[in-house]
Amino acid sequence: MQKIPGPTERRLIQIYQFLQTYNKRKITSSELSCILCCKDTLVRYDLRFVDCVSGVSNGYDVEVLKNAISDVCKIKTSSEFKKCCIVGLGRLGAALLDDGFFLGSGFKVVAGFDSSVNRTEILRSTFPLYPATRIESVVAYEKIEYAILSVSEKESQIMAQRLSRCNIKGIVNFTATSLNVPQNIIVENVSPITALLNIYCRGIK
Amino acid sequence: MQKIPGPTERRLIQIYQFLQTYNKRKITSSELSCILCCKDTLVRYDLRFVDCVSGVSNGYDVEVLKNAISDVCKIKTSSEFKKCCIVGLGRLGAALLDDGFFLGSGFKVVAGFDSSVNRTEILRSTFPLYPATRIESVVAYEKIEYAILSVSEKESQIMAQRLSRCNIKGIVNFTATSLNVPQNIIVENVSPITALLNIYCRGIK
Repeated sequence: MQKIPGPTERRLIQIYQFLQTYNKRKITSSELSCILCCKDTLVRYDLRFVDCVSGVSNGYDVEVLKNAISDVCKIKTSSEFKKCCIVGLGRLGAALLDDGFFLGSGFKVVAGFDSSVNRTEILRSTFPLYPATRIESVVAYEKIEYAILSVSEKESQIMAQRLSRCNIKGIVNFTATSLNVPQNIIVENVSPITALLNIYCRGIK
Repeated sequence: MQKIPGPTERRLIQIYQFLQTYNKRKITSSELSCILCCKDTLVRYDLRFVDCVSGVSNGYDVEVLKNAISDVCKIKTSSEFKKCCIVGLGRLGAALLDDGFFLGSGFKVVAGFDSSVNRTEILRSTFPLYPATRIESVVAYEKIEYAILSVSEKESQIMAQRLSRCNIKGIVNFTATSLNVPQNIIVENVSPITALLNIYCRGIK
């Protein structure tokens, strides 16, 4: 099959996420274009990479579309959870300790880390919290593949580098720092400040 | 001047963010390519859109580069703060009430909203917290232009639509729902779940 371009894949994943909570049976490409904030034609271009959904005139069947995207983007290929850890348990990191947060996502947080031992002892969670000195050993032992980074700006680069040496696949970066990590580590920036700046810059065009 | 392509602009903003906390005097395009997880040649392509930085052999001057990106992406064109609100004061939203979070970003949170009046009375913050029924009036009165959405999945679409009617410019979306809003409202998705899925899908290629 044809290789899916990166931006198409991101939009397909967005569609997949949207459909998780969508409760109608059908959805049209024009509805999808509103959701993605892009043109109708781009949605139809994207959906050409997804099998079994071509030639639909009155909208796409939501279940079929979900399964087809899941296949083509290889979402949840196994029923096993993908293991994550949270590094940095300040207010933002601690907010993600909420049990229900990752429910149904295919991901499971199995460890939290903070450089303050005090913090790891005070906070409550359903998975163990460790001092940051133990990142390397716990990540290896638990075979953790993904890290959510929510430390302070001044710790972010050091922690990212330590995580990079732990054989993880990627980092969800909540800090406003752009991380300098090896090419094989995938970084997704989700800092609210960067997001606000992006909106601001796109808005003044 | 030449119009900057969207992806280039995003990378330039990422560079700008990175340089905020970078404490050396010079930076090379190969260092920048590590930060952006992209090829050297792409960085040099991006930087062609930025004035005054061409023809540098031993790296870019960090201060000059910061100012040039700020100019070309029109970051902080005025010294005034851009006003935001937080909609949804669950654990994640409440984590952003931290005073220092937006310091130095050019953005300022001036209001928080939650559908639980109890919640708005319990939480402490340096700006006022209101029941969600007052979104329309407060956003208009305070001339709020940006919203950070951190409500539950089931409230997200309704809240996004209410905000869209308030003449705001964009929404930073912390929920895993893809929002269905009018084309003129810019949405930046920063859900950690979507970010994990993106890493997962890019990682299995």
